[in-house]
This record gives sequence, C-alpha cells and structure tokens, in this order.
Amino acid sequence: MTNGLPAKLKPAARVTGQRQDVWSIINEAAAASPQQPIVNMGQGFFGYNPPDFIINAAKAALDKVDCNQYSPTKGRPRLKKAIADAYSPFWGRQLNPDTEVTITTGANEGMLSAFMAFIEPGDEVILFEPFFDQYISNIEMPGGKIVYVPLHPPKDGPTTTSSAANWAIDFDELEKAITPKTKMIVLNTPHNPVGKVFSKEELQKIGDLCVKHEIIILSDEVYDRLYYIERLTITVGSAGKNFYATGWRVGWLMGPAHLIQYVSAAHTRICYSSVSPLQEACAVGFEQANGEGFWDQTVKDMRGKIARFTAVFDELGLPYSDPEGGYFVMVNMQKVQVPADYPFPPHVASRPRDFKLAWFMIQEIGVAAIPPTEFYTDANAWIAEDYMRFAVCKEDDVLEAAKERLRGLKKYIK
Amino acid sequence: MTNGLPAKLKPAARVTGQRQDVWSIINEAAAASPQQPIVNMGQGFFGYNPPDFIINAAKAALDKVDCNQYSPTKGRPRLKKAIADAYSPFWGRQLNPDTEVTITTGANEGMLSAFMAFIEPGDEVILFEPFFDQYISNIEMPGGKIVYVPLHPPKDGPTTTSSAANWAIDFDELEKAITPKTKMIVLNTPHNPVGKVFSKEELQKIGDLCVKHEIIILSDEVYDRLYYIERLTITVGSAGKNFYATGWRVGWLMGPAHLIQYVSAAHTRICYSSVSPLQEACAVGFEQANGEGFWDQTVKDMRGKIARFTAVFDELGLPYSDPEGGYFVMVNMQKVQVPADYPFPPHVASRPRDFKLAWFMIQEIGVAAIPPTEFYTDANAWIAEDYMRFAVCKEDDVLEAAKERLRGLKKYIK
Repeated sequence: MTNGLPAKLKPAARVTGQRQDVWSIINEAAAASPQQPIVNMGQGFFGYNPPDFIINAAKAALDKVDCNQYSPTKGRPRLKKAIADAYSPFWGRQLNPDTEVTITTGANEGMLSAFMAFIEPGDEVILFEPFFDQYISNIEMPGGKIVYVPLHPPKDGPTTTSSAANWAIDFDELEKAITPKTKMIVLNTPHNPVGKVFSKEELQKIGDLCVKHEIIILSDEVYDRLYYIERLTITVGSAGKNFYATGWRVGWLMGPAHLIQYVSAAHTRICYSSVSPLQEACAVGFEQANGEGFWDQTVKDMRGKIARFTAVFDELGLPYSDPEGGYFVMVNMQKVQVPADYPFPPHVASRPRDFKLAWFMIQEIGVAAIPPTEFYTDANAWIAEDYMRFAVCKEDDVLEAAKERLRGLKKYIK
Repeated sequence: MTNGLPAKLKPAARVTGQRQDVWSIINEAAAASPQQPIVNMGQGFFGYNPPDFIINAAKAALDKVDCNQYSPTKGRPRLKKAIADAYSPFWGRQLNPDTEVTITTGANEGMLSAFMAFIEPGDEVILFEPFFDQYISNIEMPGGKIVYVPLHPPKDGPTTTSSAANWAIDFDELEKAITPKTKMIVLNTPHNPVGKVFSKEELQKIGDLCVKHEIIILSDEVYDRLYYIERLTITVGSAGKNFYATGWRVGWLMGPAHLIQYVSAAHTRICYSSVSPLQEACAVGFEQANGEGFWDQTVKDMRGKIARFTAVFDELGLPYSDPEGGYFVMVNMQKVQVPADYPFPPHVASRPRDFKLAWFMIQEIGVAAIPPTEFYTDANAWIAEDYMRFAVCKEDDVLEAAKERLRGLKKYIK
C-alpha cells in the first residue's frame, strides 16, 4: 500500500490498508461495461436541480461582499435562525439559533465533528447494520470502537414485498451491545439504505436504554422527537438531502447547548467555517419552502418516483422493501440466477453474492446499483447478500430507461 | 468547562480547556467599544468581491445539475486540470491533474487532511513562530506533537521600518529541533502574519535538512520551487486568497502522487467531497485569470493598499515590517504608551502587552487589529509583544478611515 516509500514517509494507518470501496468498484465497472451509457441508479445524488427560488437566492448571495467572505465558524446568523424556526415545531419549543444550532460542511463533516467532540480513544459507538460506510472512518478517526447491531430483514423478504418498517431491531441484542464504554449510538432514519422510519415505540425503547446508560444519541435526520431524551440527542440535517443539492456541502446539527458547543468547537478545528454564499441560499430555502409548497411537493414527487420505479419489480416478481422515507429501494434478487460459469474479476469474485449481482447487471443489463453488503461487517454480510440498493432520486426518463433495461432480467429469473 | 455534564457525557479533551481565542476577544471587544462603528483591520477577509468573471462563472455553474451534486471526492476534473495547468510553469513540468492535485474544503481542511494522512500519535511537526493558530489543532488532532522554532524579528524593529525579509531563521535552532520523530515541517510564505517571503537560500537550507532527515514539507502557498525536494513537498493553495473569496472554502494540495493519494484518502474521510458549483467557478477563474490580467492587477492592487495604509505609520513614526507578500502588516508599537492606570478586563490583563494595546486601540481609537502573541507559545511571546497585525485587504475608503483614526495615537506616542 505504501508504494515503496521510505519508512519515515509512510502514511498513517488511518488512510491505508482498506480494500477497494463499493463506489470505485461500481464506477469502474460502469465505465468499462459494453452496455453504454449505463443507467446509473447507484449513488444517491439527484438527477435534477434545487428549485429556482433557492438557485436564485444563491446567485443573489454571490453579489454580496459579506456572503463571499468567511462565515462565522458556527454558521451565518440568517441560516441558524431559519433552521431554528423551521425545526422548532418538531421540538415543540423555540430552538435558540445561537446555542442549539451549528452549521457544518455537509452532514458528513457534521457527524465527524460530533464524534471528534465526544469520542476519546477506546470509547464505543453503537451502529446499526447496514450502516452508511462513511460513519466508520468518522468514528475511528478520534479512536472510537464500533459495536455493530444488525437490523433484521423480514423472513419472507425473498418472496414478498413489504414495508421497510419490517426490518427489525432485536432489543436484546441492542442491550447486550451496551458496555460501560458506550458513549454514543447512531440513529439513521429514514434509514439508508433500508428506507425504514424508526417507529415511536422503537425510538422510545432506544431512548430508554440511552437514558439508563447515559448514551449520546447522534440522530441522522430523525425529527420525530422524544422530549425526555432531548438533553442526550444531537440531530443532523443537510441541504443536500433537503434541497436536492448534494454538492453544496451545507449541513447542520441541532441539540442542547451543552452538547452543541463542543460540536462547534470541533467543526472550527476541522473546517474553520463552511461555504458562505450557499449558506445564505439555504437560509432563503428554509424561509420560503412552506410558501412555495416545496416540502409537500418533495414528498409527493419522491413517492411518485418510488411507485413509478418499483412497478418494474412488481412486473418481474422481484420482492422489495417499500421505503417509508428517503430515496433508496432495497430489492431482493434471490430469484435472479447468474449463470454458473459467469466470469468475475478477482476483486468481485471475492465479495458476497450481491457484488456479483451488481457486476452482472452492469455488464449484461446496463443498470448500475449498489450491493449493500458493503454496509455490513463480514460476519453479518449474509443478511443482505441477495439485496440490491437502487437510488430513485432521478429524472422520470432515467427511471423509465432503467425499467426498460431491468426487464432484461426476466430471462434470468427462475 | 464541561458545564456540570454527567461524567459519561463529557466532551473529548481535544475540544475543551482552551483559553479564549484572539478572534472572539477582539470581536467581543469591538462590539462593546464606545467607538462605533469600529474600523476592523483584524481578520484577513476581503472587503471586496471576487472579480465579475468568477462570480458570473459561479452563477452559471448553479444552473447545471451536475455542478449542484457531489463533486468527485478528489475534486471536479475541470478544476484539477485548471490548477495543474496554472501551476505547471512553477514546477517546470506538466502536473498530472489526476494524481498530483486534490481539492479540499479550503486550505484549512487541506492542511488537516495532510496531517491526518501522515501523522501518527507521537510524530513531531516543526512549526515556525509566529504560526497560524489553526495549525495547532490540526496537528494535535491526529496526535502530533508540535516543535516550535521562532522567526527572529530584526533587532532594530522598535526603531526602524525595514523589509519583512529581515525576520530571520536561526538554522542552528532549526537543526536542533529535528529528532528521529520529526515527520513534517510547515512552511508558510508569504508568512502570516510576518509578510516574509522565504528566500531561495533559506528554502535551500530547509530543503537540505528535510532531505537529510526525510521530512515531509507542508508548504502553505510556497511556489518558489526547489526541484530536488519535490518528492517530499506538498503545496497548499486556496481560492480564498487567490480570488478574494474566503467564504468559498475551495482549497487544493499539489505534490507527488505518492503523497497526494493519502491526502485525498484523508479528505474523503473528513468531508467526503468539497463544494461543487464553486469549484467550477474556480476552474474558470484559473482558466481566465491571465487573459483578464487578474494576477498582475492583484499584485498591483495589494502593493497599492500596503503603501496607502502604511503611510500613516510613517507619519506617526511607528516602524513596521514592510511585507514582501500577503496582505498583513506588522507594526511595532513599542513607542505607544498606554496610560499606566488604564483599566483592562482580567482576560486581557493576563495576556502580553500586545493584547492590552489591541484592547486600548479598540476602546480609544476605534480600530481593531490582531495582537500577534496569540501566534506564539508562552515562552516566546515576548518576541512579538510590541507588534500589532493589520489586514490591508480592505476597500480604500476603509483604509482611509482607519488611518484617520490611527492619527489619534499621536498623543500616546512619546
């Protein structure tokens, strides 16, 4: 891995020795496939622009001198206020924009800031499997140890389409995962890639355990509040997901001042401050979204895309988890038979069946999707080896092109 | 510091226990001063916008779907190529945009990525004093230990204006600072806040030591190449400084592929990717800057601002370091006598004389500047306690307003 560098120049362990990640495997396979152009249903970027009222706000901000210079490290006051105002109804009280909101460089750096703020070497963080892969390095960077607890898919997943709600937590497993060193737990709902929205009852059980053991809850996009765990909870949000702008790198964390102040301190040391003119545009986004009917339209559009896209799996008789939120669909492909002698390159042959399915679909069908065992530890990868993750946040003509190609799977389905 | 949090919720040491930083001391003092509005010559943000051709490029990028979505983690190909093309003349060969350039979230996160890429706990990094304060946390985050080597101001600094070139390295001190654990050295030229541009001879002596001891050179904005140390050198740049856009958070690192690949890997784990539409605008900035005469104009404008502003210190008989580059001026204020009974709040009274001078100027003169001992260890703070840092990257009318107020110092000069 270190390319014959002299010993004294060797890189740190934290950036070496990892196997090739799923994104580069899939992108390289797509680039090399005979089926060009590949219909890319893999990565969760949007195939369309943020709405005009937000784009126009960004352009207006670019004309202002102060919007092009450093933002305060905790974020532009207008954005902090807009976020506090937008989320206060979910909290049932007015959030304080100066002490309970802090702006970060996307949700990703926001999560890292939270781990950097609270994790000392040896502290443990509980993560549900499947997990967003970036969490791993973000927890390990400050020296944290990850303890995994699997979400269990419904037993009839290979045969029956059902709600993503049916992916279940085994609460005995969760409680056994807690030790005196457990410092944080990460919740991600709507869950990526499963599409499950944790129920009030599930959140309550998790909350009870966190109160009992004094565990900080890092809550990626969970707005269904439980008031009695508020003092333990940091909630993460992002302009990328909210406003169809994954390239803007504007995120935020909300929570009690006694937690947020340390997240802000960590963010200052990591990025100093976040992109200024696009913060201003996001402020306008929050200020005007209700008036523009944007939130309602967003939910309606995404439900429409999920229905439009999953119709092809109904046709094919391939069962899937119907997502309760988010924009990913997990399809069970146990019925798809890859020819026994199909040739795979070694870096795919050595991975679970979903990597082979993904490779096969790219080569033969011309559709790229993401094999979800990347988001599992090796020990639990078997749970998801028949699933494939599709991102539906694409233009309708892209969805239709993907469906047309996916019909080519028919001859491989027994 | 931890506000009575239960022991299990306590924040990590890396975000606690620091004394109040200079930026918040000065900003709070400015907000509370009777002299309103304060003329802010403190922080190095620009008082004017990036040029129109770059602002227009940013607006055009906002209309493109792919420019609003995730950039590749290493950066947008157009920007990497534009940077490789712009800097290749300094290298004397064509830089490879895919392997020798990587884009980061400003120079700050770029520096952090470099430290995260190479520093293991206990590794040592050599830093010249005064230092940019953000370096400290960036080195300590991966567990690095900082070894300080002072720049020595000219002996006649209290009486005579002279070139910032006269701040000198004691090369015996530098060589003694090197141990078997020395992994990196940070160069910063034009130096902030001194304004010194390291001479070819100085760079050569540093380079010889780094080759002898296999030390990686992290070079903040040094483009005066020494070819024989290229394999050891990572060079940092930023759109903030180049294009008057400190709020854009677009930075880059350039260097040999065997070093840059690990910086990219660290950046991916820290921020995943950097702001996409403003990367595109920076690409256009580099592509068109020569044709627009922007680089020449930039140097001429900044020289003009330095000359315009420092005239008031010539009037007052206050000597200063005439900067060779950058946009900071260090003024020696030994001659300024603060009344013996002047009242200072405890958090200022406990700091060296330059903090008291800064407080006094904000309260009595109405001009904010930065006390540079913040950028020194306690042991060496005496070196700079008579100096004050002024940022001249402001509109001319702001410079004139500052000068008019600074004339009010006359009655305090003996």
